[in-house]
Amino acid sequence: MMSHYAELLTPAQIIAVHDASLEILDQVGVLVRNEEARRRFGRHGCRVDPQTQIVTFPRAVVEEFRRLVPPTFTFHARDEALTKTIPGNGLVIATASSAPNLIDPDNGEDRRSTSQDIARIGHLVSQLPGIDVFSISVLADDAPDGQFSLSRFYPAVKNCSKPVRTSVMDIREARQILKLGALVAGSEASFLARPFITFGYCSIVSPLTMDFDSTEMLMFCADHKLPAYGTIAPIGGLSAPLSMIGMLAQINAEWLATAVLAQVSRAGTPLIYNFLPVVGDMRTGAYAAGAVETGIVAMAIVQMARFYGVPSGSYLGLTNAKSGDAQAGFEKAMSPALAATAGIDFIVIGGLLDALMSFDFGQLVIDDEIARMLKRVRQDLALGSLERSVAEIRKAGPGGMFVDHAETLAAMKTAAFLPQIADRERREVWKERGSVRTHERALSRAKELLCHPNTAALPAEIDARVRNGFENLVSGDCEVPSGWTAHLPDEQRPRRLGRRGSR
Amino acid sequence: MMSHYAELLTPAQIIAVHDASLEILDQVGVLVRNEEARRRFGRHGCRVDPQTQIVTFPRAVVEEFRRLVPPTFTFHARDEALTKTIPGNGLVIATASSAPNLIDPDNGEDRRSTSQDIARIGHLVSQLPGIDVFSISVLADDAPDGQFSLSRFYPAVKNCSKPVRTSVMDIREARQILKLGALVAGSEASFLARPFITFGYCSIVSPLTMDFDSTEMLMFCADHKLPAYGTIAPIGGLSAPLSMIGMLAQINAEWLATAVLAQVSRAGTPLIYNFLPVVGDMRTGAYAAGAVETGIVAMAIVQMARFYGVPSGSYLGLTNAKSGDAQAGFEKAMSPALAATAGIDFIVIGGLLDALMSFDFGQLVIDDEIARMLKRVRQDLALGSLERSVAEIRKAGPGGMFVDHAETLAAMKTAAFLPQIADRERREVWKERGSVRTHERALSRAKELLCHPNTAALPAEIDARVRNGFENLVSGDCEVPSGWTAHLPDEQRPRRLGRRGSR
Repeated sequence: MMSHYAELLTPAQIIAVHDASLEILDQVGVLVRNEEARRRFGRHGCRVDPQTQIVTFPRAVVEEFRRLVPPTFTFHARDEALTKTIPGNGLVIATASSAPNLIDPDNGEDRRSTSQDIARIGHLVSQLPGIDVFSISVLADDAPDGQFSLSRFYPAVKNCSKPVRTSVMDIREARQILKLGALVAGSEASFLARPFITFGYCSIVSPLTMDFDSTEMLMFCADHKLPAYGTIAPIGGLSAPLSMIGMLAQINAEWLATAVLAQVSRAGTPLIYNFLPVVGDMRTGAYAAGAVETGIVAMAIVQMARFYGVPSGSYLGLTNAKSGDAQAGFEKAMSPALAATAGIDFIVIGGLLDALMSFDFGQLVIDDEIARMLKRVRQDLALGSLERSVAEIRKAGPGGMFVDHAETLAAMKTAAFLPQIADRERREVWKERGSVRTHERALSRAKELLCHPNTAALPAEIDARVRNGFENLVSGDCEVPSGWTAHLPDEQRPRRLGRRGSR
Repeated sequence: MMSHYAELLTPAQIIAVHDASLEILDQVGVLVRNEEARRRFGRHGCRVDPQTQIVTFPRAVVEEFRRLVPPTFTFHARDEALTKTIPGNGLVIATASSAPNLIDPDNGEDRRSTSQDIARIGHLVSQLPGIDVFSISVLADDAPDGQFSLSRFYPAVKNCSKPVRTSVMDIREARQILKLGALVAGSEASFLARPFITFGYCSIVSPLTMDFDSTEMLMFCADHKLPAYGTIAPIGGLSAPLSMIGMLAQINAEWLATAVLAQVSRAGTPLIYNFLPVVGDMRTGAYAAGAVETGIVAMAIVQMARFYGVPSGSYLGLTNAKSGDAQAGFEKAMSPALAATAGIDFIVIGGLLDALMSFDFGQLVIDDEIARMLKRVRQDLALGSLERSVAEIRKAGPGGMFVDHAETLAAMKTAAFLPQIADRERREVWKERGSVRTHERALSRAKELLCHPNTAALPAEIDARVRNGFENLVSGDCEVPSGWTAHLPDEQRPRRLGRRGSR
C-alpha cells in the first residue's frame, strides 16, 4: 500500500475540472440519438431539444445523480473464488479486448481471429496469475450468422473461469449472452445472483454524443441489473481538445452524462470511471495508443474518480509496436506504472499490439509479467519489521553477510517478485541456450501453457446443456497442434500430456 | 509539475527509518579502512575503535553534520548552457556508467570496450536531447599504462560538451583528471570556477564499510571543492537485509555516514542522495538490476532525501536483458516511471544491458526516448487553459471536430511528445519498410547520428593543448566506418558528410 498516491491536479484544479464539466453539460450538452434515453433524461430534469436531439443538464441534476454511483464495482467470476471487487481486491488487471486480428503463433503473420483463438486465449488467461479479468481479446471471424458475440462469449466462458467481459452489438445479442449465462448457471435467477459476465459498451462517441445501440445497452444492463460499464475513448486533437486539461474536462463531462443516464435508469447502478484517453500524433493523425500521454491523462482521471468516490479504470500499457519488441516493452510498462502510482483500481492492458489491432500470445505472457510487477508496486512494504531489520543489521555487522540469516531464508520466495519471462542469467548462459529473445521465450511459454489440461474448463454436463440451448454453436474447444508439446518440459511431454488429456 | 508526488512511506515511517539509521550508526557503526577518515570522524565527536577500525556515531553528531548538506547539486557542463542543477532544472537524466563490455554495433557480438567506443558514445550523447549528463558508459581496455581513467575522460570530454561524470581508481588518477580539466579550461582556477567534470565514488561497500581508496576520493573531492557524489549499491539478501524496509534503513545509515564525512571534511560540500538499490534474486543469487523492486525502493529513497532536504538520485531503468528486446523495454521503463512520480531529481539510466555489464548503441537511443517520456511526466499540464478548453469544446459542439481548431494547430508540435524511435505507422507500412524491429531501427539511428559532424567537439587549439600536456594519450577521436553513411538519409549521404567532415 502506498501512503499517498501521485497527484497531477491540486484539489482546486479538481474542482475546476468538475466545474468546467458541469458548464459543458449545462451549456453545450450531449447529442443523444436514442429516443428512450432522451425520454429518461427529460423525465429527470434535463432539457431535451427534440429537433437537434441535444440534451442539456442543469447542474443540480448532474450533482444529484452522480452521487448515486456506488463506490465499488464487482467483477463476478464463474469460479466464485476468482471474483474481484474494485477498490478492495488490490489492483485488478484485465486483457484488452476486441482486436480484429491475431499474430498467428505458428508463422508470425497477422490474420483474422476466430472463436478457436478465443478458446486458446481463455485457456491461457486461466493460467496467468497477473490477469484477473478476461476481456475477450479478439473478434470471431468464423461466427455463424446471428451469433457474432455469442461466438466470442461461449469459447471464453467455456475455457476460463475468471470474470469474462466484453461488448455486444445490440440488445438481441445481449439477450443471447444472458441466455448463455443462465444455461451455465442453471437458471437466469442463479446467473443474476452472481453474473460472471460483465458487459462493456462505448457509452459516448466523443465528442459528447450518445449513439443508438450502445446507449440502449447501457439502459438494458441497468434495467436488468447486469454488470456493465462504459469506456470513453476520445482522441486529443481529433475528437477532443489536444490540450490534456481540455481533454480531461470533456472526458469528465462525458462520464457524468453516462453516470446520469445509468442512475436515472436504475438508482445505484455500479459503474467504473473508465477511459481510453489517447492524444493523437498530429504529424500523421496516427492513433498513438502507446504514448506516455495516455498514462499522464489516466493519472488525472484517477483523481476525478476518487473525487466522485467511484472506481477508476483505464486502458493502459497499449502499444503502437507491431511485434513484441523493445517498443512494446517500454510502451506497455510506462503508462500503467504511472497510473499505478496514482492509485488506479483497474487496468486494461494485456495481449494487444499495433494500437489494439492485433492480439499476440507471446505478448500476453509478457503482459502478465508486467501486470505482476505493477501489482508488486501496490503491495505492502512490510514496514512493521523495521525493528527486526535493525537487529538483523546488528547481527551482520559492518562487512557482514545476510544470505544465511533466518530472515533472508524465510522471505526468499516472497520478498521480491520472481519473474518467469525476464532472463537473469549470465550472458554466457543465455548464449548457450541459443540467445533467445524475450518475445520468443514468452511465445514458447504460451504454447507450453496451452498444452496443459484445462482445469478451468466448463464441466461436460454443463457444456452439453449450453450446446443444447443454441443451434450452430462454434465448438469452443481449445485445440493445439501436436507439435506444440515440444514446448513442454521433458518430463511433461508425451506421456503426461496424454494422461491429463484423457481426463 | 505534479501537485503531489507519490509516497510509499507515511511521515511517521520516514521518522522511524531516520531513527533506525541513527540507531545503526550509534550502535553498530561503520568499518572505516582509511586512517585519515577515522581521524576526521574522531575529531568531530565520533567514537573510533582503533583495533576494529569501527567508527560509531552519536546521534547529535549525525544530526549536526547532515544538516550542512546543501539543498542543490550542480552538474557543470563544458558548454555552460548545458549545465544542470538538481532540483531546479527538472528531471535530470544520465547515462549509466562503467560497463566492461560493449555490443559491437557492426556484428552484434559482445567484446571489451575501448577509448574509441567512448569517443563515439560521447558524440552520440551530444545529440540525444533526453540525456543531460554523460556518465562514461564503458571502460577503456586500450588504456596505456597509468592512464586507465584518463583514457576514459579524455575521449568523453573531447566529444561531448554536456556534463561528464564518472569514477576514478585513486587520487593519482583524480589529479590527472584535474589536470585534464585545467588544460581544457585554460587553468586550474578556471576549471574549478566551473568544473565540468563530476566525480563519482562508491562511498560505501555495503554493509556499512568505507574502503580505503573511495573514502580517500570522497575526502580529496571535498577538500578540493571538486563536484562529486557517491553511489551506494547494496544487494538485498546479500549485503543488506532482504526486506525492503531493512534495506532502506541500512541505505539511509550508509548515506548519513557518507554525508558526515563529506561535511566534516568541508562544511557545505554538495552531495546527492544517490543509490543503486537492488534486491537479489534468491533463486540463483543473480543481480536483479531490472527488478521492479529497484523502482519501489527508489520511491522510498526519494522521500528520505526530501526529508533531509537534499537532491535525490538513483540508478534506474537497468535491465538484465542481454539484447534490446521486450524485456529491456519493460524493465527500463517501469522503475524510472515509478521514481519519476515520486519526484526523483536525477536518474541514471541510459545505454547499458545485462545488469550493467554491456553498453549498446541502439539501447542508448531507445533510452533517450524513454528519458524524454519520463521528462514529459514531470512537465506542466498547462492547466491555466481550462477556460479556453471549454470555449473550444463549445465551438466544436457534440459530434464536432477539433483538428482544424486554432488551439490544435498552435499546439500540434508541443502538446504531446513526438517519438522518433517508436513506430506509429499502420502495420502495412511497417511491413513495406521491412518489418524492422525497434532495436534495429534505433541502432540505425545511432549510426546515422554518429555520421553527423561533431559540433560539440573540443576546439582544435584546446585539444592540442591537452595532447601536449600528456604523453601517450589515446586519440580520442570519434571515427566511424565509411559503410555507416548508408544510415544517413539520402540527401545527407556522401556529399554533405564530406563537406561537414572537412570543417
